Amino acid sequence: MYRIAVIGGTGPQGRGLAYRMALAGHTVTIGSRDAGRATEKAEEIAAKIGTDTDISGAENASAVADADVVILAVPWDGHAELVSSLAPDLGGKTVISCVNPLAFDDHGPYGLTLEESAAEEAQRLAPEAAVVGSFHHVAALTLWKTDGPISHEDILVCGDDQEAKGVVMDLAATVTGKRGIDAGALRLARQLEPLTAVLINVNKKYKTRSGVAITGVEGKS
Amino acid sequence: MYRIAVIGGTGPQGRGLAYRMALAGHTVTIGSRDAGRATEKAEEIAAKIGTDTDISGAENASAVADADVVILAVPWDGHAELVSSLAPDLGGKTVISCVNPLAFDDHGPYGLTLEESAAEEAQRLAPEAAVVGSFHHVAALTLWKTDGPISHEDILVCGDDQEAKGVVMDLAATVTGKRGIDAGALRLARQLEPLTAVLINVNKKYKTRSGVAITGVEGKS
Repeated sequence: MYRIAVIGGTGPQGRGLAYRMALAGHTVTIGSRDAGRATEKAEEIAAKIGTDTDISGAENASAVADADVVILAVPWDGHAELVSSLAPDLGGKTVISCVNPLAFDDHGPYGLTLEESAAEEAQRLAPEAAVVGSFHHVAALTLWKTDGPISHEDILVCGDDQEAKGVVMDLAATVTGKRGIDAGALRLARQLEPLTAVLINVNKKYKTRSGVAITGVEGKS
Repeated sequence: MYRIAVIGGTGPQGRGLAYRMALAGHTVTIGSRDAGRATEKAEEIAAKIGTDTDISGAENASAVADADVVILAVPWDGHAELVSSLAPDLGGKTVISCVNPLAFDDHGPYGLTLEESAAEEAQRLAPEAAVVGSFHHVAALTLWKTDGPISHEDILVCGDDQEAKGVVMDLAATVTGKRGIDAGALRLARQLEPLTAVLINVNKKYKTRSGVAITGVEGKS
């Protein structure tokens, strides 16, 4: 079991991941700029789980300080500033970026054209951290509304630190009931992050909560 | 049934798609710069199918001229020149781009950072065509080695011309046995094309031929 800080845990994706991680027995700290809001969100999640669970709220830097694993579930807007401010505390930790740099206009969502992904930006700004890109694609509401394994979806994991990537591939089973899929080096986050725009388009078109599965991998390792 | 030209039909992805389209009863013309190579490839496919089938080879412009639907299955290198040269013949046709702008180095494949996708480039260079981005993700060898529906994978389809997009969503059933998934506007090709880099990484890591499935869409329309 890990001590997991979810930065941006008051937002939908962060809330969903924090819920699932706490439900699985991990020690979870919701991080926010506002410790009061973080504590409120932690209480909401604890109440949903009902049984004895280890979830609390704290200001971001304090949430990070106590964690082995940090999940960045923050908006793209303000991402660089936030990571820079936390960088001294992220060193030596496994940092999971599920940030999606998207934009929206009258034609729906689309991926921003960037020289580096959010995950690569986080790695550049916090060079002592082991940044892994993952958990971009499971819908926030699917996480929040499901308490069993979301076994028909896959969690794709990319990163340059093999040990940290392995930790995240294992953590993926908390959500799907099966190990995450190794999607390659950290730079592949450029492909994983904006794929979320496709899923949001599909959700609107088909009135559903879509997800991604990778075929041909089951039973291989 | 459509008259389909497969430009780049002598390459693996084009060969696979040409095979499956001919197998389903469409009239297929393999296009190449070299009509002789195109004809050889058409004969290879006809021999594999065995029964009476309507597949032939021609020089690119001639292949396009006779077609209702044109599949661009060409390398990214040289893409702009090729599309420009064919543009006068592409007007009024449904043009399917399955081009993947990837690069490879010691760390494997990755998506190129581009201002526009290959599909958008084709649309810009052939403004009278109805360009649709699709068929990026089914592995060339899966297409070639399978004669039944590849029902565990999905074909994602993006485009701005709704009628052409509908044609391609229907054609997707030729490969998977089910209608393709509407992934949104043509600009979403920026997300679909480089996702192939993720799949190639997964193939190498897991020694498999991976594919993409979108969950939560079955039974919705």
